[in-house]
Amino acid sequence: MKRLLILAAFPLLLAANAQAQTPADSVMLRKLFDAAMTQAKCYENLRHLCKDVGHRLSGSANAAKAVEWAAATMQTMSLDRVEKQPCMVTHWERGAPEVAYFKSKNGKVTVPILALGSSIGTPKQGLTAEIVEVQGLDQVKALPDGALKGKIAFYNRPMNPKELDTFDAYGGCVDQRGAGAIEAAKKGAIGVVVRSMNLRADDFPHTGNMRYGDSTVTKIPACAISTNGADLLHAQLQADPHLKFYFKMNCQSFPDAPSHNVIGEIKGSTFPNEIITIGGHLDSWDVGEGAHDDGTGVVQAMEVLNLFRAIGYQPKRTIRAVAFMNEENGMKGGLEYAAQAKAKGEKHVAAMESDRGGFAPRGIEVQANAENSAFVMRYKPLFIPYMVHNIQTGYGGVDISPLKAQGAGLYGYMPDPQRYFDYHHADTDRFEAVNKRELELGAWTMAAWVYLLSEYGQPSNSPYEPK
Amino acid sequence: MKRLLILAAFPLLLAANAQAQTPADSVMLRKLFDAAMTQAKCYENLRHLCKDVGHRLSGSANAAKAVEWAAATMQTMSLDRVEKQPCMVTHWERGAPEVAYFKSKNGKVTVPILALGSSIGTPKQGLTAEIVEVQGLDQVKALPDGALKGKIAFYNRPMNPKELDTFDAYGGCVDQRGAGAIEAAKKGAIGVVVRSMNLRADDFPHTGNMRYGDSTVTKIPACAISTNGADLLHAQLQADPHLKFYFKMNCQSFPDAPSHNVIGEIKGSTFPNEIITIGGHLDSWDVGEGAHDDGTGVVQAMEVLNLFRAIGYQPKRTIRAVAFMNEENGMKGGLEYAAQAKAKGEKHVAAMESDRGGFAPRGIEVQANAENSAFVMRYKPLFIPYMVHNIQTGYGGVDISPLKAQGAGLYGYMPDPQRYFDYHHADTDRFEAVNKRELELGAWTMAAWVYLLSEYGQPSNSPYEPK
Repeated sequence: MKRLLILAAFPLLLAANAQAQTPADSVMLRKLFDAAMTQAKCYENLRHLCKDVGHRLSGSANAAKAVEWAAATMQTMSLDRVEKQPCMVTHWERGAPEVAYFKSKNGKVTVPILALGSSIGTPKQGLTAEIVEVQGLDQVKALPDGALKGKIAFYNRPMNPKELDTFDAYGGCVDQRGAGAIEAAKKGAIGVVVRSMNLRADDFPHTGNMRYGDSTVTKIPACAISTNGADLLHAQLQADPHLKFYFKMNCQSFPDAPSHNVIGEIKGSTFPNEIITIGGHLDSWDVGEGAHDDGTGVVQAMEVLNLFRAIGYQPKRTIRAVAFMNEENGMKGGLEYAAQAKAKGEKHVAAMESDRGGFAPRGIEVQANAENSAFVMRYKPLFIPYMVHNIQTGYGGVDISPLKAQGAGLYGYMPDPQRYFDYHHADTDRFEAVNKRELELGAWTMAAWVYLLSEYGQPSNSPYEPK
Repeated sequence: MKRLLILAAFPLLLAANAQAQTPADSVMLRKLFDAAMTQAKCYENLRHLCKDVGHRLSGSANAAKAVEWAAATMQTMSLDRVEKQPCMVTHWERGAPEVAYFKSKNGKVTVPILALGSSIGTPKQGLTAEIVEVQGLDQVKALPDGALKGKIAFYNRPMNPKELDTFDAYGGCVDQRGAGAIEAAKKGAIGVVVRSMNLRADDFPHTGNMRYGDSTVTKIPACAISTNGADLLHAQLQADPHLKFYFKMNCQSFPDAPSHNVIGEIKGSTFPNEIITIGGHLDSWDVGEGAHDDGTGVVQAMEVLNLFRAIGYQPKRTIRAVAFMNEENGMKGGLEYAAQAKAKGEKHVAAMESDRGGFAPRGIEVQANAENSAFVMRYKPLFIPYMVHNIQTGYGGVDISPLKAQGAGLYGYMPDPQRYFDYHHADTDRFEAVNKRELELGAWTMAAWVYLLSEYGQPSNSPYEPK
């Protein structure tokens, strides 16, 4: 421990010789690891969040309950400060369950749908119209004016299974969920059905947010259909190109509602004014239990503080675990947090987010200026023995992204990506889908990274400018 | 394609310059990857094996059904040869379900147990005795003679959660399952209860094989108890050190039974007499569906041949997919396969095994002589883009291990190890526990490795001698 303190006092010396820091830091990383695998509370915390609170869309009663849960849990953690930070958040409600079907020769075929977040509802009696399959926004943009007049657009471009990283596959087709209604409405469509962003063939629709753009575009209702439902619909359209589709949705937007980010803090011993924020988002979609998205991120961020307390590590810099509100359909918690930081003149040196599921660790994505990036890349050898190989340039996360402009180096926890979209925004995203060890290994990866950030800080505080 | 063939014709030149092979080989690896993610049959094959056959302990009717299934499936794969290779295998039967309980102040507490493979049964009326908790073989060996006279030994050493690789945690306590009865019997015990090799706290006992050693040791019945059951029993023993435990098992050994390995082969175009064997084991324990152990290995080995056919790759060397019989409680299929190879004068240059579950790929363990090892380590850079980092010295696998003496380089497919022991030898090891993409990524990893082995062979055929 003594050796560690001596070494840590000379970060510039360490920068010159990356190997020098290894022995003492690797001992600390191992201590954190042993604590993570034997004393972590994240799995039981996740159980409470999933089972006692459940799903928790921004503005809902459950979201308020989740805020109380997070604050109460942080109060038990011997922290220096716990705060419920007020923010106004998006408030949209699904209403009664959706109904959708089409009629084939063999009778009525019901298909599972979910309204997309921010969508308007259908008329009370629902909507019936011919349905036209398209493969994406470009195809719709290329259609002649009025080509979809009175029809429903069916965006059926699947996630590409050939992408190793499923987040790339998601990125390759999520635009049709976000902007599908805008482009379809421009061509006269009266509704939108989007294939779920899911690589599996199953019966669970995956919701997610959509937008209507500026006020010149007609708002039309938009839903997600399960992958099996989409395949069924596709097959039926081959047989009957004039197939009519019926759907009914009861969703509705309300004025923004009051809610909170929840913040727990350990004050830094040496540089208390240098803040490192770690977080996940507390809100979830209104299906399943919001386990991987993003209960795991919330409990992992809290676990970093737990683990520091468990091994008696006093961070040099101030560490804040933040349970952000409203990531899914507004990002208003993340924006408010950064705005408050700026207003108070706080110095955020770094931020780390976990919002890609609670799976086994693969790496950390580094979104920082050249100097900070080079500085932290030296930590790589410390992680190889733990099979955390992919410490690489990438993306930090949605909620911490506004801190970039304040000079914080952003770091995204990167778990194995293969199973995430089996659960993302669907009823399948439940506590049982999370593995205890994988969750704990992720918490360790974050704790180890945050320990190093806390010890050595960041050499530069100039805002990151991506090339 | 042309470039590839030219390069492949000069393996020695390639050995001198590892980089030279990269462009064409990386194109082939990508072709195999795309095929694995879009055309693989392994997941549907696994569904058939798990759901139409089910669990399949050696010598059982289901094992015979699995042999027919494997042969019939290989017959559909346009291979050059399919063979059912006869072998005699262990035949042990569980009989009627086990019963176990102890009596506490609050009444009878039933706990879930499973007889360990190869164990004798209890007397028909069951066995009741005081039960003594021990932490492992060393503790029992150190007891005075007769210390366990008339008692049941309860081996309760848990898997160590601080081991990153769960196979190391397994290795750290599986000796009490294998030899626990031998050592306890030497001290006078009349029965053995072993904590399940499982890192989770749950109600599923995990079976596995045990042995009695030489004929001087008294055979006593041995079972596995679920981790929750073990914790309950431990707690009760604190309150009542003279607690009596009851268990009844109806298992029995029979003479060896006839069965088969199933072999499917693609003849090599250039070096048909150089054989590369890839395999998993077809038998499983008699609980669950033998999905991760080792249905996934069997369908992945078959998938390598499927993928070669799918992209039109004609291997230079002969590739054999082998579904080995009797890995779990005898290894007699693996031994027979190697014996036949030796008897026929076959030249086995390499062998690869998948028997650690169907999880996302992390690496390949290399168990080869120094020359072969150095030769294949050059392939590492080809795998990094696929997040397969851990190509490292290690263990090939049980069924291929006898081929070592014949000079084959042995390679063990290494998936992520975190979840394996949640399912291993337990009722939880079912088709639903396997993720389609993870399974396919594993099949790709094997296909890519076998492609390289097939193209470049092995520079040395001297038997591997571990240092």
